[in-house]
Amino acid sequence: MDAAVFSPPASAETKTLKVALLGAGNVGAQVARILLEDADALAARTGARLELSGIAVRNIDAPRDVDLPRELFTTDASTLVRGADVVIELMGGLEPARTLILEAIEHGATVVTGNKALLAVDGPSLYEKADAAGLELSYEAAVAGAIPILRPIRDSLAGDKITRVMGIVNGTTNFILDQMDTTGASFEDALAEATRLGYAEADPTADIEGHDAAAKGAILASLSFHTPFSLEDVHCQGITQVTAADIAAAKDAGFVIKLLAIAQKLPVPAGNDNGGVQAGVSVRVHPTLLPRDHPLAAVHGAFNAVFIEAESAGELMFYGQGAGGTPTASAVLGDVVSAARRLVLGGPGRTETTTGVLPVLGIEAVTTQYYIGLDAADQPGVLAKISALFAEHGVSIEAMRQTVHRERGPHDDGAPGSAELRIVTHRASEAALAATVQAIKGLDIINSVTSVLRVEGV
Amino acid sequence: MDAAVFSPPASAETKTLKVALLGAGNVGAQVARILLEDADALAARTGARLELSGIAVRNIDAPRDVDLPRELFTTDASTLVRGADVVIELMGGLEPARTLILEAIEHGATVVTGNKALLAVDGPSLYEKADAAGLELSYEAAVAGAIPILRPIRDSLAGDKITRVMGIVNGTTNFILDQMDTTGASFEDALAEATRLGYAEADPTADIEGHDAAAKGAILASLSFHTPFSLEDVHCQGITQVTAADIAAAKDAGFVIKLLAIAQKLPVPAGNDNGGVQAGVSVRVHPTLLPRDHPLAAVHGAFNAVFIEAESAGELMFYGQGAGGTPTASAVLGDVVSAARRLVLGGPGRTETTTGVLPVLGIEAVTTQYYIGLDAADQPGVLAKISALFAEHGVSIEAMRQTVHRERGPHDDGAPGSAELRIVTHRASEAALAATVQAIKGLDIINSVTSVLRVEGV
Repeated sequence: MDAAVFSPPASAETKTLKVALLGAGNVGAQVARILLEDADALAARTGARLELSGIAVRNIDAPRDVDLPRELFTTDASTLVRGADVVIELMGGLEPARTLILEAIEHGATVVTGNKALLAVDGPSLYEKADAAGLELSYEAAVAGAIPILRPIRDSLAGDKITRVMGIVNGTTNFILDQMDTTGASFEDALAEATRLGYAEADPTADIEGHDAAAKGAILASLSFHTPFSLEDVHCQGITQVTAADIAAAKDAGFVIKLLAIAQKLPVPAGNDNGGVQAGVSVRVHPTLLPRDHPLAAVHGAFNAVFIEAESAGELMFYGQGAGGTPTASAVLGDVVSAARRLVLGGPGRTETTTGVLPVLGIEAVTTQYYIGLDAADQPGVLAKISALFAEHGVSIEAMRQTVHRERGPHDDGAPGSAELRIVTHRASEAALAATVQAIKGLDIINSVTSVLRVEGV
Repeated sequence: MDAAVFSPPASAETKTLKVALLGAGNVGAQVARILLEDADALAARTGARLELSGIAVRNIDAPRDVDLPRELFTTDASTLVRGADVVIELMGGLEPARTLILEAIEHGATVVTGNKALLAVDGPSLYEKADAAGLELSYEAAVAGAIPILRPIRDSLAGDKITRVMGIVNGTTNFILDQMDTTGASFEDALAEATRLGYAEADPTADIEGHDAAAKGAILASLSFHTPFSLEDVHCQGITQVTAADIAAAKDAGFVIKLLAIAQKLPVPAGNDNGGVQAGVSVRVHPTLLPRDHPLAAVHGAFNAVFIEAESAGELMFYGQGAGGTPTASAVLGDVVSAARRLVLGGPGRTETTTGVLPVLGIEAVTTQYYIGLDAADQPGVLAKISALFAEHGVSIEAMRQTVHRERGPHDDGAPGSAELRIVTHRASEAALAATVQAIKGLDIINSVTSVLRVEGV
């Protein structure tokens, strides 16, 4: 407690703001603790006493991380919301969170939420309702936990134009891929280790299939391009197919594999009818090869980071903890203090506006570099045939590497061995690449296509 | 130009804000260009037309990076300021910048500045004047160029407590140290290369002696600890004494040397009379050894980064371009757009308040780990003598490494060779370390103390 070093709030003039907390899970419990413990410091910083008026939970007797006064708990969220100046929603899930947020807006409360699932589905309609009511709705905690990303994008970059956002926004998958990269572990072993250490949930599907990253990708894209995006606009591929061999081959070629959420401004492909609009935005989540000297490559363990490219600012990166009760509580409280300062000063709230009408582009609008692993027969002319096939489909090769696996021991029977081919292409469209891969599979000299991965940041 | 994708501003309702620009150097010229080129997009984002009412310069005919309409230029800065809603000060230096900013505040204008030299000296008094007038004064561009750091610290972390900030805030010195680290170059050669490539000015003193980093350190400390700090509160040591041998030895031990500006909350040393206050803040700039896997170690070339440790959020890092006309213009325009939005919405401005009264602590309050390089005689018992001396002064050794340089060729005359000793200590105070080093220098078995450097981030 730092109360001693803050000038004491002049009690006669100090306003009191009623703060309602919905949910007391690992983030909610920490938010409640800090609101109670640091009440004096928060009052000095905002000019208002933030009075925690109640905590709505489903089960008052459930065990919690923090010991909180029992009299604050209630199961009647609706009554709590209707008497609040600021409502902090940390229940997660779509309902009853959505209904309670709408009730808060109706009753003129400022809303702070960390609910990425709800925002990814219903964000645009919630922002609109808050906007119409002149109320703030902020959600720093919904993307990348403790990392301040909402205000930097919304305010600091407000005079710039973002062209691409690439985020490591899921700690579980970054931990797994980092384990595989540093120890050579298989996906299954790395997942087991993540579960053992508490980085993965009992059912890790939402993380490893990329759904969690996709929700955050939609929110990041909406924020960065002033245009509403929802979960269904996101092309999503998880990390379950990434093998130890992929990681090793990538490492060997100077790359690291990360699960990235990428939102990118692109030209609208020719033939698309978008009323004359030239540019659109594509949002996608997939395992991605990054050069090992890329700033995102240095993001280890369960840490998160968001890498932004803007026309004037150039490259920016924001790094920190993406989850955890206390770190995420820091983001929630930043929103609460900002809201409280505004309520003390008066004046209208800062609302979200979607001034842009950039169309959503599908994955087919994206051109990127690809990494392709092939298991081929070791025969003369293989490289020539494969190169010709790439050229036919208009996909240009940047680098190609062949490793021959052939036993030439005393019992060599002269049978042909197999060759491992690793190809990095120049930028190609999804369609051209897919057609190339399809054609390669048809060659009799190809045993299998072992991996097809996208490359960014080169 | 993206005008087409933004909903057109309703011209009847659109307010016009007069923006005065002071200075048309490499940042100012880019700010003017973007204000003119992106006028429609900026109007859509702010709800106001930002009319560049004039550009005050000393010499209208000086060559500029950008071709700007001649009729905008004036040498009468004072008249320009008095008619403006928003004043952007990018002249640099103390005067006439200070007088013009005060004039702007007197006339009720919102001020945006990138003037780190002025803020480091006079920041607190300027914030106070703006505060008293209910006007915003923002300065994102003053620290770490394009990197959004002001809003994350002021707003996003407003509900948290920062404990330490470490910044690579000078691109010139980071470029030089990075060159030395990657190529093995000497300081002089790396400086020459930086000059050749335009990363160092003709007179590089302010950069290499750490003065520029110290000014930014004072601003970062004020912002992070809600307490006024000025340039003279900063303990400052530049990089001119860092040798290729230091860099090589650090590398060998798993470290990289960076020039860091560090602001840190520390206990007030016993005996200091600070009216019962327990904690204070020390601000310092010096070459620092960082473990190579620390996030700041991956900041290469002329890039900047600010690493923040906060009680709840844990570790955060903000990375990007620290200088350059266009990147810095991005930060300036972020402030301008934020100010314009507020002027359109109405309500009082967001002012800087220094609620904290943390005392400034000198370098003697700091305890840190140290790296010490010694050139000693290669005699039995040297290690024992040196270890005993460290113990006597209460400085505990974490790691010690000895490399013997002795020629044992055919002409060996049996004379004693020399031994290179590298010692990393546990945390020790500046005073204890200084006393230890003094005592070591007095030992007859020591030829010289080759380096004494601080270690952080372990």
